[in-house]
Amino acid sequence: MAFRREITGFSNPTVKALRALREKKHRKAAGKFLAEGLRLLTDARESGHIPEVLVLAKGREPHPLLAELEAAVDAVGGEVIETSPDILSKITGKDNPQAVAGVFAEFDTALASLDRRRADIWLVAQALRDPGNLGTMLRTGDAIGAGGLILLDDCADPFSVEAVRASMGAVFTQRIARAEWSEFEPWLRGGASQLVAASLREAQPYRGAPYAAPCFVMVGNESRGLPEAYEMACDLRVTMPMKGRADSLNAAVAAAVLGYEVLASFENPS
Amino acid sequence: MAFRREITGFSNPTVKALRALREKKHRKAAGKFLAEGLRLLTDARESGHIPEVLVLAKGREPHPLLAELEAAVDAVGGEVIETSPDILSKITGKDNPQAVAGVFAEFDTALASLDRRRADIWLVAQALRDPGNLGTMLRTGDAIGAGGLILLDDCADPFSVEAVRASMGAVFTQRIARAEWSEFEPWLRGGASQLVAASLREAQPYRGAPYAAPCFVMVGNESRGLPEAYEMACDLRVTMPMKGRADSLNAAVAAAVLGYEVLASFENPS
Repeated sequence: MAFRREITGFSNPTVKALRALREKKHRKAAGKFLAEGLRLLTDARESGHIPEVLVLAKGREPHPLLAELEAAVDAVGGEVIETSPDILSKITGKDNPQAVAGVFAEFDTALASLDRRRADIWLVAQALRDPGNLGTMLRTGDAIGAGGLILLDDCADPFSVEAVRASMGAVFTQRIARAEWSEFEPWLRGGASQLVAASLREAQPYRGAPYAAPCFVMVGNESRGLPEAYEMACDLRVTMPMKGRADSLNAAVAAAVLGYEVLASFENPS
Repeated sequence: MAFRREITGFSNPTVKALRALREKKHRKAAGKFLAEGLRLLTDARESGHIPEVLVLAKGREPHPLLAELEAAVDAVGGEVIETSPDILSKITGKDNPQAVAGVFAEFDTALASLDRRRADIWLVAQALRDPGNLGTMLRTGDAIGAGGLILLDDCADPFSVEAVRASMGAVFTQRIARAEWSEFEPWLRGGASQLVAASLREAQPYRGAPYAAPCFVMVGNESRGLPEAYEMACDLRVTMPMKGRADSLNAAVAAAVLGYEVLASFENPS
């Protein structure tokens, strides 16, 4: 096994730099983000994402997947650091830290680099503020075989610790693009596209609606929903039953119910 | 308008007592919980839940629904307090507080008092740890016309500020019961019941599965899923497509996708 740098002090500059990645401004400045846990990092590796820095807790249980991860980091010339569980906990901000964390370079999130032909379903979130909702959408996208998640306007950061955690690894398997609506709409109309949203305006039932690939399923901000202009720009507006007092679902839930319906319609065309 | 007690100091004992309701042990000791926002409190009122204490921010915009709320609290002999937006913010723990918050008595959550004939769908959560997920399940339950949410084993507190917030008022419209599995199973089998869960064990596709009312849709803990014994006790085990690397959905998402499927099968029997 290669030599491993060991960090023993909380005030070590590397610890400070890693810990700083929990804040958006530092992530943005460094172009890097943190992910933790053997499962997540294995998902990353198997999706072609090798951490630049791997941080291991001393006293961890040996694991074949951990050994593979270390070997992969060594192979690309990345750095492997050992530290105490306490310091790892300080870095990740979790009371019961996983035995391993990694630092990754942020991905290219330019809309122009996204190839819509890669998948029949894409999720779109507009001004989604909750990183947990955003991560949950990535996780759902992975499950329904979506190509990725397009973040419109002022969304939460997909590379935040909370979003990465909630994505359960899907941050590495789903494409992520960020754009303003003014950029998204011409891009969307520059190729095959069906834009769909849940709406109360001139909408049809979501079950049995004529979904068509590539289908872009869009949900709006947690408090305000979608701007009316965005809804009216949709090719298809659908309603879901609302049997109770509420008139909307949680954004990530709406995306999932709709996304699974689109998937079912593609797999079992009536 | 009736005389309103005004609180101007952060160290006022009432402020401290209200603020303490953000912690579970104090909620439990007092048997009370906090909810905030005019819309939530109006949902509560229209569902028959009047706060024991209503806290209003000075300088708030007048609103007819707020006036109705005050009148309802006065009518039942509750207390109405005025305070500064800063103090209200301290009570609710929110930077941008709503103009109004209320203190409610916790509801009876005994399983025995739950009438399964009230609805065709019930949601069941086992050892769900995230109050946001729990509140989201309440919100989804309201949307699909579920009767309520049954919390098995060691779940998060449905009366926490986070759960109440995520429920978007459904904490007042959905019945909530808490029970251990050992208590739930005999209760379930003591009447008409179909227990359903997503599972990888001897399961059939969730679309078109033979759902039957009253249908109890159960999801498990965020990390561990359902115990095998609970899955095997189900009348129906179903699978949802998992096209990507992940083998599970967020718990609240799984409950929603499954719950909407059950609803659709009841509304459009094939």
